[in-house]
Amino acid sequence: MTGPLGYVETQRVVLFTEDDPLVLRGGGRLDHVEVAYETYGELSPARDNAVFVCHALTGDAHAAGLHLGAKKRGWWDNLIGPGKPVDTDRFFVVSANLLGGCSGTTGPLSTNPATGAAYGLDFPMLHMSDLVAVHRRLLASLGVARLHAAVGGSLGGMQVLQWVIDAPDEIDRAVVVAASSRLTPENIAFSSVAREAIMSDPDFHEGRYAEKGVQPRLGQKVARMMAHITYVSAASLETKFGRRRTGSGDDWTMGPDFEVEHYLQHQGETFLDRFDALSYLYLTRLLDYFDPFADPWTADRIRSTATRFQLTSFDSDWRFDTGQSARMARELAACGVAVDHVELPSPWGHDSFLLEPPGYHDRLRAFLVG
Amino acid sequence: MTGPLGYVETQRVVLFTEDDPLVLRGGGRLDHVEVAYETYGELSPARDNAVFVCHALTGDAHAAGLHLGAKKRGWWDNLIGPGKPVDTDRFFVVSANLLGGCSGTTGPLSTNPATGAAYGLDFPMLHMSDLVAVHRRLLASLGVARLHAAVGGSLGGMQVLQWVIDAPDEIDRAVVVAASSRLTPENIAFSSVAREAIMSDPDFHEGRYAEKGVQPRLGQKVARMMAHITYVSAASLETKFGRRRTGSGDDWTMGPDFEVEHYLQHQGETFLDRFDALSYLYLTRLLDYFDPFADPWTADRIRSTATRFQLTSFDSDWRFDTGQSARMARELAACGVAVDHVELPSPWGHDSFLLEPPGYHDRLRAFLVG
Repeated sequence: MTGPLGYVETQRVVLFTEDDPLVLRGGGRLDHVEVAYETYGELSPARDNAVFVCHALTGDAHAAGLHLGAKKRGWWDNLIGPGKPVDTDRFFVVSANLLGGCSGTTGPLSTNPATGAAYGLDFPMLHMSDLVAVHRRLLASLGVARLHAAVGGSLGGMQVLQWVIDAPDEIDRAVVVAASSRLTPENIAFSSVAREAIMSDPDFHEGRYAEKGVQPRLGQKVARMMAHITYVSAASLETKFGRRRTGSGDDWTMGPDFEVEHYLQHQGETFLDRFDALSYLYLTRLLDYFDPFADPWTADRIRSTATRFQLTSFDSDWRFDTGQSARMARELAACGVAVDHVELPSPWGHDSFLLEPPGYHDRLRAFLVG
Repeated sequence: MTGPLGYVETQRVVLFTEDDPLVLRGGGRLDHVEVAYETYGELSPARDNAVFVCHALTGDAHAAGLHLGAKKRGWWDNLIGPGKPVDTDRFFVVSANLLGGCSGTTGPLSTNPATGAAYGLDFPMLHMSDLVAVHRRLLASLGVARLHAAVGGSLGGMQVLQWVIDAPDEIDRAVVVAASSRLTPENIAFSSVAREAIMSDPDFHEGRYAEKGVQPRLGQKVARMMAHITYVSAASLETKFGRRRTGSGDDWTMGPDFEVEHYLQHQGETFLDRFDALSYLYLTRLLDYFDPFADPWTADRIRSTATRFQLTSFDSDWRFDTGQSARMARELAACGVAVDHVELPSPWGHDSFLLEPPGYHDRLRAFLVG
C-alpha cells in the first residue's frame, strides 16, 4: 500500500558522556551529547534494512508522519512512508537531528557542563565528521551495524558523503541530492551575510542572548529572508507571485506590499520560532569549510568502498547548482567509486529536493531497491 | 586623442522653489529642489551635442575626471573622456545626482522647509518620472532643449526609458544598459530584504536617525553586502577569490576568514560612508514599482517618437538578466520604436555595465556617432 505514516514520536538518547566523550575532529570534546531521533518501520531480524535520513540545514528529526496533536506532517513525508520511495513497509528508517542543531540534539544552546550555562560561542566549531560520528553512535545504539542506504539532501547529502569517507564499509547506497562537496565563494558569501546579520544584531550579545531572555530576532529574520530567496528560483517566484500586490495603483508604501514581500516576511517570522541563531551560525560555517576532497586521506579511504552513490541535482537550483554535483561525481569517480549523477528538470530551485519534480521519486525508489 | 579628463568640479543649482515647486507624479510637491551635477566638454554653438549620463542606484554626479585632490576618478571614467566612447572632444556631457539621492541633490536627508528638520520618511514616494522631471529642468537651465543621447546603466537605463516616455521628442539616441522595464519578483525580494535590514536596525529610528546623530549602520551594511553579491556573478567570485582564506587548516573562525568574506566586509563598510540609508529605501522602492508599460498611456506617448534605442545586456548578469532587456525590446518594438538589443558575453555579472567587456564600448561608440 501507499499511504502516509501514522503517529510518530521523537525520542532522545544520551550517546556520549564525561566517561566516554565525543572527541571532535577539530580538537576539543563534548562531555555530554544527546540526540533526538525518530524511527519509522521495523528493523528486520537480519538488521539489514536500515535507511538513515540526513536532514538539511534547518531540518530536524521529524522527517515523516504526524506528531500527536499536530497538523503538519514531517518535512520529507512525501518521500517516506508505506509504499513510498523510502518504503516503511520495507525499510527501518532512522532520522536524527544534527549535532549543533536546536531540535533536541546537543548544540550551542545546550548547557555547558563546565559552566552550567548555555555554551553560546564557547561551543566548539564542528566538522562534518563530528555530525557523522554522533549519528553512527546512534545507529550502533539501535543495534544497526550497516546501512542499506543513507539519504540526504543539501547539507544532509554532504553528511552522507562524509559518512562514506569516514566509514567506507558501512553504507550500501548513498543518496545525495542537491548537494556539494565544496561550496562556491558565492555560497559562502550568502552565508557570511546571514551570519553578519545575526552577529551584528544588538540582541546577539556575543552569543549570550539566551541568558538575557532575548533572541537576535531582527538579524535572524533578515538572514532567513535572504537565504530563502536562494532556495527557490526566479521563475518559481514569478509563477507563484508575479508582481501581485496588496495595495493598488499609486498607493505605494515602503513596507511590504508585493505578495513576494509578504511571503518573505512570513518565512522570516516563522523561522524565529523554529530555529536558533547559534545553530544557524555553526551549521552554515561547517558547510563553508566542508571540502573533503582537499584532504589527501579522502581518496585513500574511499578507494576501496563498495558504497554506490546516486547523485541528483536540479536544473533550476542555483544555490547548489548541477556543476557542484558534477564536480562531486568526478571526484568520486576519480577514486574508483561507483556514481550515477543525473540532473533533473524542476522549476523550484534548491527546494526541489523537498518536492516531487517528475522522475525524482522514481529515481530514488529504483536505486533503493536496486 | 584618447585620454582621461582633467580636473572637474561638482556644481549645484536650485531648480524648483516654493513659487515654482516640483509637482510629483504620485501627488504632493517639493518646494525646494536643488541638484548636483557635472559637465564635461563644451556645448556646441548649435546646442546639439549634449549627452546626458544617468547613474545607477548608488552612483552620483561624479561620472568622470578627477576632483581636485582626489585619487579616484569618476565612476564611468572608462567610458567618458577625450576620444572615449562618450567623447568629450565631441560631446557636451551632463551627469547629475538623482532626486532622492544623497550626493548633493535633494533627498530624504535634505531639510524639509515645512519643519526645518530632515524629511526622513516624510519625504514623498518618488516615481521615475520625478527623477526625469528634475533632470529635464537641469538641462533647460543649461540651455539645452534636445539631447544627442541619454545614456544609463541599471537604474540609469530605466530613467532613460522613462525620459523618452515623458518627452518623446527630446532625445535622439537612448542607450540603456543592463536595465529592465519591470523588475522580477526576485529583484523585488532582494531589495525588500535590504530594506528590512535597514528599517529594523534599532538605529533607524523610523527614519529620524540623522537628528539623533546616528546611522542604521548594521542594517545598511548587511543590505549592501547582500546586494553586492547580486551585482557580480558566481563565476567572477570564483575567479577572483576561489576559496582562499586568511587562516589555514583547522584554524576555523565564525568571523570573516575566506577572502570573499573580507571583500564583502569592505564593500559593506565603505558603503556606510558614501551612501545614505533613506536614499537607499526610496530609490530601491521606486525601482520595485517601476512598470511603465503597464500604464495604458505609455504606448500612445512613444508611438510617434523618433528616439532610437540601443539596449545591451550581459550574459552573466542574473540581477537584470537578458530576459528583462529582451522584454523591454519587445515592448518598445510593439510600439513601433526603433530598438537594437544585443546580449554581450561578459564574466562580471550586473557590474559589467561599469566595466569593459569585449565589444561593449565599441558598440556604444558606434551608436553615439551613428
